[in-house]
Amino acid sequence: MTVPAPGLPARVRIHEVGARDGLQNEKTAVPTEVKAEFIHRLAAAGLTTVEATSFVHPKWVPQLADAEQLFPLLGDVDAALPVLVPNERGLDRALALGATRIAVFGSATETFASRNLNRTVAESLAMFEPVVARAKEGGAHVRGYLSMCFGDPWEGAVPVHQVVRVAKALLDLGCDELSLGDTIGVATPGHVQALLGELGAEGVPVDRVGVHFHDTYGQALSNTLAALQHGVTTVDASAGGLGGCPYAKSATGNLATEDLVWMLDGLGIETGVDLAALTATSVWMAERLGRPSPSRTVRALSHKE
Amino acid sequence: MTVPAPGLPARVRIHEVGARDGLQNEKTAVPTEVKAEFIHRLAAAGLTTVEATSFVHPKWVPQLADAEQLFPLLGDVDAALPVLVPNERGLDRALALGATRIAVFGSATETFASRNLNRTVAESLAMFEPVVARAKEGGAHVRGYLSMCFGDPWEGAVPVHQVVRVAKALLDLGCDELSLGDTIGVATPGHVQALLGELGAEGVPVDRVGVHFHDTYGQALSNTLAALQHGVTTVDASAGGLGGCPYAKSATGNLATEDLVWMLDGLGIETGVDLAALTATSVWMAERLGRPSPSRTVRALSHKE
Repeated sequence: MTVPAPGLPARVRIHEVGARDGLQNEKTAVPTEVKAEFIHRLAAAGLTTVEATSFVHPKWVPQLADAEQLFPLLGDVDAALPVLVPNERGLDRALALGATRIAVFGSATETFASRNLNRTVAESLAMFEPVVARAKEGGAHVRGYLSMCFGDPWEGAVPVHQVVRVAKALLDLGCDELSLGDTIGVATPGHVQALLGELGAEGVPVDRVGVHFHDTYGQALSNTLAALQHGVTTVDASAGGLGGCPYAKSATGNLATEDLVWMLDGLGIETGVDLAALTATSVWMAERLGRPSPSRTVRALSHKE
Repeated sequence: MTVPAPGLPARVRIHEVGARDGLQNEKTAVPTEVKAEFIHRLAAAGLTTVEATSFVHPKWVPQLADAEQLFPLLGDVDAALPVLVPNERGLDRALALGATRIAVFGSATETFASRNLNRTVAESLAMFEPVVARAKEGGAHVRGYLSMCFGDPWEGAVPVHQVVRVAKALLDLGCDELSLGDTIGVATPGHVQALLGELGAEGVPVDRVGVHFHDTYGQALSNTLAALQHGVTTVDASAGGLGGCPYAKSATGNLATEDLVWMLDGLGIETGVDLAALTATSVWMAERLGRPSPSRTVRALSHKE
């Protein structure tokens, strides 16, 4: 049943991360053709933004080492296909293949910047500067991921002003939009609204802010609701709940796109996504990976009586 | 990190249903002493209302056939201990043991009333009338469960006015509080707020309304947030996420108390619950049942590095 709630957006754009964020930590090797079919199916289910792969060095993310082979298979996909690039070398590889949407991956905390990027936050921003500038010169759209926006496994709670400072720096570099990540899944709705409120107070337009919640503690969807109530209209999610942070304490990770779509459908918020087709895609992918989807909606809808 | 959000209650009373609703459909036979220890541990973790058992006929719920043996073991439990009674016979059994908090279990839909209670909705209300009257005469507090308040597996979406009609009838019988159940887990926040709004418009005070959400589609916590935003201060949950509706399409059922407490703690909403002690209780109970808790918070907090 569809029952709208007051104060929510009419439409939400889902930024689907299953093919990149979802698969990057997979133990099972996923053939390039399976990834290509996955992305085609996601777009056919109505997702308009499907993050495709990462041009990071294969040593760090061997699962996505086939980016050069995969990207050319996606020419006929009817969706925007952002790709992650860690540095100028990655940008060169992506641009050479004709990528028009780029994402960089920053950290709100020094410890995660050091562990994940082997740099300070300031050094990582300096590294992104030419990446963003050159991508923008070439007409690409640039997303800036910001991880550990709420809690950090080593530093604990992350102060809002610290996140705002790095967020503004990413926008100042030229990023078109941000994705605020609760990488370890600890956030709660008041914290979400406090961060969004402070970003707004600092002049960041809410339409340049996306949210990326993890379901490690079962909080992703209530945090999403809180963000929607604050005017956010871009929400990251992963088909079937694939993936998650290797630093988070449990197997559960990304918000499942199906759980999100169930809520948005019920609220009458338009996404363009066909939930049945998306669920079928996640069931198909789960069979390829040899284990069931952690998405509760996928499990409920695919349950055989 | 604790960050309050505007418009939410300062305190929430959790109505813990794990020992009754959680165990009633268990395949594994749970010894009476284990149930007694579970209830003692739940109260020791700070839960102030712990539904203990059901005085339904053992033929229907064999898992709770030991109510007469269990209840006398709970005399020193430092919490209110409601018990479910289906009819006058059940009430007699409960009162004979000194129960002071009673719950009846009604349905908002004819199909579920017929299948679960073998009666029409009107007939079930007539059956509850002397139960509630006699319980109240004896000074007991009476809760009225109302199931299928949002969707019904046979009837589909349940109209709000239909739920309001049965809810008011239960209050008119003398129920002190209601528990509005999303028995198959399909609700979304707008639907929740529409039902609560209509109940308020019909003169039902929000402090007599509790909510009981299931996580079948991953929606329980966002629906809870919506209910809190509407002024609800009584929330049902099941330690470790035990239990669920046998008619719902998947293994996942009740909102896990730990996932709820994580959110409420983060919002600075007082519950009196010690999350670490509660999680330890759910891990202990999961070992007794021989399978892991479905609660994401339990899994995250009990994960060994």
